[in-house]
Amino acid sequence: MRLKSNILKSYMAIAIAFSGFQSFAQTKSKPNVIVIYTDDQGAIDLGSYGANDIYSPNIDKLAKEGTRFTQAYVAAPVCAPSRAALLTGRYPQNAELTGNTSAEPGSDGLPAEQYTLAELFKDNGYATGHVGKWHLGMSQTSSPNAQGFDYSFGHLRGCIDNYSHFFYWEGPNIHDLYENGKEVFYDGQYFPDLASDKAINYVENHKNEPFFMYYAINMPHYPYQPTQKWREYYKNMAKPRADYAAFISTIDERIGFLMDKLDELGIRENTIVIYQSDNGYSTETRAFGGGGNAGPYRGAKSSLFEGGIRLPTIISWKNNLPENVVNDQFLMNIDWMPTLAKLCKLDKINTKIDGIDLSKMIENPKKTTERTSGFWKYGKQWVVRKGNWKLIGFPKDTSNKGELNLEEDALFLSNLDEDVSEMVNLASKYPEKVKELTQEFLAWEHGHEKDIPKKIETVSNLAKGGKISATTTVNQKYSDLNLLIDGKLGYTDYASGQWIGQEGKSMEFVIDLNKIKPIKTISVNSLNNSGNWIFPVQAVEIRLSDDGKTYGGLKTIKRDTKQPKTENATERLTLNIGEDSRFIKIKVEGIGNCPKGHPGAGFPGWFFVDEIIIE
Amino acid sequence: MRLKSNILKSYMAIAIAFSGFQSFAQTKSKPNVIVIYTDDQGAIDLGSYGANDIYSPNIDKLAKEGTRFTQAYVAAPVCAPSRAALLTGRYPQNAELTGNTSAEPGSDGLPAEQYTLAELFKDNGYATGHVGKWHLGMSQTSSPNAQGFDYSFGHLRGCIDNYSHFFYWEGPNIHDLYENGKEVFYDGQYFPDLASDKAINYVENHKNEPFFMYYAINMPHYPYQPTQKWREYYKNMAKPRADYAAFISTIDERIGFLMDKLDELGIRENTIVIYQSDNGYSTETRAFGGGGNAGPYRGAKSSLFEGGIRLPTIISWKNNLPENVVNDQFLMNIDWMPTLAKLCKLDKINTKIDGIDLSKMIENPKKTTERTSGFWKYGKQWVVRKGNWKLIGFPKDTSNKGELNLEEDALFLSNLDEDVSEMVNLASKYPEKVKELTQEFLAWEHGHEKDIPKKIETVSNLAKGGKISATTTVNQKYSDLNLLIDGKLGYTDYASGQWIGQEGKSMEFVIDLNKIKPIKTISVNSLNNSGNWIFPVQAVEIRLSDDGKTYGGLKTIKRDTKQPKTENATERLTLNIGEDSRFIKIKVEGIGNCPKGHPGAGFPGWFFVDEIIIE
Repeated sequence: MRLKSNILKSYMAIAIAFSGFQSFAQTKSKPNVIVIYTDDQGAIDLGSYGANDIYSPNIDKLAKEGTRFTQAYVAAPVCAPSRAALLTGRYPQNAELTGNTSAEPGSDGLPAEQYTLAELFKDNGYATGHVGKWHLGMSQTSSPNAQGFDYSFGHLRGCIDNYSHFFYWEGPNIHDLYENGKEVFYDGQYFPDLASDKAINYVENHKNEPFFMYYAINMPHYPYQPTQKWREYYKNMAKPRADYAAFISTIDERIGFLMDKLDELGIRENTIVIYQSDNGYSTETRAFGGGGNAGPYRGAKSSLFEGGIRLPTIISWKNNLPENVVNDQFLMNIDWMPTLAKLCKLDKINTKIDGIDLSKMIENPKKTTERTSGFWKYGKQWVVRKGNWKLIGFPKDTSNKGELNLEEDALFLSNLDEDVSEMVNLASKYPEKVKELTQEFLAWEHGHEKDIPKKIETVSNLAKGGKISATTTVNQKYSDLNLLIDGKLGYTDYASGQWIGQEGKSMEFVIDLNKIKPIKTISVNSLNNSGNWIFPVQAVEIRLSDDGKTYGGLKTIKRDTKQPKTENATERLTLNIGEDSRFIKIKVEGIGNCPKGHPGAGFPGWFFVDEIIIE
Repeated sequence: MRLKSNILKSYMAIAIAFSGFQSFAQTKSKPNVIVIYTDDQGAIDLGSYGANDIYSPNIDKLAKEGTRFTQAYVAAPVCAPSRAALLTGRYPQNAELTGNTSAEPGSDGLPAEQYTLAELFKDNGYATGHVGKWHLGMSQTSSPNAQGFDYSFGHLRGCIDNYSHFFYWEGPNIHDLYENGKEVFYDGQYFPDLASDKAINYVENHKNEPFFMYYAINMPHYPYQPTQKWREYYKNMAKPRADYAAFISTIDERIGFLMDKLDELGIRENTIVIYQSDNGYSTETRAFGGGGNAGPYRGAKSSLFEGGIRLPTIISWKNNLPENVVNDQFLMNIDWMPTLAKLCKLDKINTKIDGIDLSKMIENPKKTTERTSGFWKYGKQWVVRKGNWKLIGFPKDTSNKGELNLEEDALFLSNLDEDVSEMVNLASKYPEKVKELTQEFLAWEHGHEKDIPKKIETVSNLAKGGKISATTTVNQKYSDLNLLIDGKLGYTDYASGQWIGQEGKSMEFVIDLNKIKPIKTISVNSLNNSGNWIFPVQAVEIRLSDDGKTYGGLKTIKRDTKQPKTENATERLTLNIGEDSRFIKIKVEGIGNCPKGHPGAGFPGWFFVDEIIIE
């Protein structure tokens, strides 16, 4: 909702009222637009995309009557931010919706100030309708009607039982079906049919004026509830694939109903149809671990590998756009807003968007896409794609197609031309490319230094190869003591797998260098991250021994508390030794309780050590 | 399933086959039995039970045509064990099902060896049918068909979406509708209507032979999905009560359908109908915190207060049992098996049951009930009711009608004649009654000494009224240090609210007696419960001070590790002092890591102290 849109709307209403047929004729010159957005449909889960076990003749026909993209992306790997990006033409970060919305009645979602596709079309005299899933908020300012849709029918939360129209999660069992903000009951009626009927009615009711319809099909999102007809069709296939495939065919059949209606009304050639999935197939438990398929791609829903974001995408405008085209060029769902604005000859979009008008390469597939790079950020994961190179920060593979090494794969580089499966990390082979793409990411307004995985720093440590044991208790979560003498430092992230942590108290270790060695210094490297109740080591006590039995005098160093170091940084306490020894008994003391003024004051603070460095 | 029942069945089949009409006539002399068991229906949630906001004419009519009980109980406050008790005539402990069953496909429930009402009736020549909820297991040996039902239609898990017939919980979204063990689909059809139709069909199909039908209605268990008709009827009532009430009326209407069918078939007078709820109304989040009502009773589902277990219960056998009776006598659902066996003149039940034949007091309400006592045990809660006295151990009030003091109300005594609401604990007023009922409970085969809350022992402590502070970290879960000097000891249960615990390390306290006092001894009382990784205090170090600044010499005592004390017991380490002092600095040392041979070896063990006793 852009605040001025109401004023515009009033103006428009007056204009139409006074200008009569002239205005009508003028707006009618514009084509209709239908954006079909499916839910959790995997990257190749259509016959036309290579799934030879799925029957999808209607969607495949749509692809033949237009362009099927093989490198079309959504801007987020989960529902709500993917939809926010589609509707605003902006990265989720700019659309101000980066995660799934709450199921709490009346909760917010896409901020009111965001300008949506619906508002754009409405401001250009279109009728605007939404049918199906919303999942972008249900407050007065974030509901479909508040975001530019004259008409809305569907559910407001993330998924729905297709017969009772209840939303089931951990909270209350809630009925969730609304028409223009009013709760409506269609007990027992199959939601995909209800939605199909509403979509067809919408098209029929608006056949004489330009309309924009956002048809957000709630399938194949769990619960897997295909019709009996399609269950029967796939009865010999293994589950959960059978239910999933039957659900896709259930979608396909209803797309057929809609296309037939467009033909019947004679408006097929005056209607642009876009088909896209909102994110990769789900591997969640609720989906039995996943019935979908991403084919050659790694990743699934929630992952920024290709399988989470590179999805079936079709555009068809009969007799106006090329047909039977397979377009291999780079496109993102945020590009639909400017592209549609161009194709429909809408007024200039008076808001900053991230999408690019790709109408030229769609009208002429021989033209090169204007999209040369793209950015993604979801949780800790991020991606920059530039040309055919793709760099992922902190990759997550929800499809479990291969191992990921926390350290070595924290930056994952692929050349999609050569390895579309992203199975081989080229980061170590092409450090310059990593550097280049990292710079691209940092140049993006939402790429920050703190998002960049730091390379694990190695240090020379006489204790490396030695033995270490604890004489005090060790926190069970951080119990691999060898990390303290492996010669590797941790990122400034206590959960990065290089840190040994303890709550409140101190820890004491004995390090055995295997033989008597000359020791110059002993240092303890610790983390300062008070936001996570983590404080630097306050003191270190050391005793040396040649035989591991008799220990010499106490050597101590305390932290200079008058010079607190920067947040999210490491600190090093170093003792000068200048002796030969084999066994080192070292006691490391934390802060005890969090200090006064800290939110955790009076409760135990943590300390984390990544290395005890013997030089 | 009793193993010999198959042999009996074969025998019976042969007997019937050979004896022809004679056998038929013989079995037909027995009355039919229908047990209607509703789900999570509150104690007064029927018009006839006093709910003047609920319309339930059919069930109220059933009550008028028979006996309505005001003191009828179920043997457990949740679904599965309540049903296990109903079907076996045994306490859940003897039915070997004391909690809800798993939702895992194929998982076990009521053990195969348990002899059910269905098996009893089957062994007596009855047709046996189950319609509705099962929730007693879905393995080959625990399914309805395996437990004596010739016919079964319904869902196997704890709740169901009434239109899609899916079970929704944290795991996969599972379709859960079966007929005789075979998955069946009735997409979109309203389950209460399906079940009603199946029940009516069952009755119709078996009108010429004696039948036993267990009609386990899945309402008003969440999800609250009443019909449009009843939603409309209650539209001006507040939610969630409106949906709940509409759901009760939805039940009632379907009971009406069934009773009409019995009339139509002319078998009403040859059919015993029992109606009962399985446990109190739910206050779970999924039920919006609860739409039900227990009227004057405290407690709800999961509680052993009256509201969880004392429920609407009706028996009607027109022209055979008294009509229009309100019977205030004590009855439990486990009594139905022997009572029905008597009323139907079945063979002797060849298995040990806990139920009592109450047919005499049902046939003649002036006769006194043979049930003089009853026992319950659910989780930590337990109950013994004897006459009108009721004692609850570790009561839990899911209705939140009042406060419960962990210590003072650990044994909660009521006289139900005088305080049916159980709001005033008479335990301290009638210690002899508490003792008597506790003995009754202990005499019950499932009452154990460890179930009895121990009275908090008080000790004389010079530190009581003084101040205590910690100089080391304190575990956040156990941070009320005053418990250490309150003169009260804990039960041998670390979670009983009297213990201060710490993992691994030691704790140091400073106790201020407020003025200089002569001190004879200082003792530390600690717990030994190695099963929970809790070990006795190993050592105590003490320093005394008059001014809280300068402390005297160290006094130490170590635990004699050669004489390990009993499990689940407390230990006391005592130092002789013989000095005057005001401030006591006391360091208490735990075991550190769990010892060798213990499952937690190498990981931190806990120690718990209930009191530091200064004498």
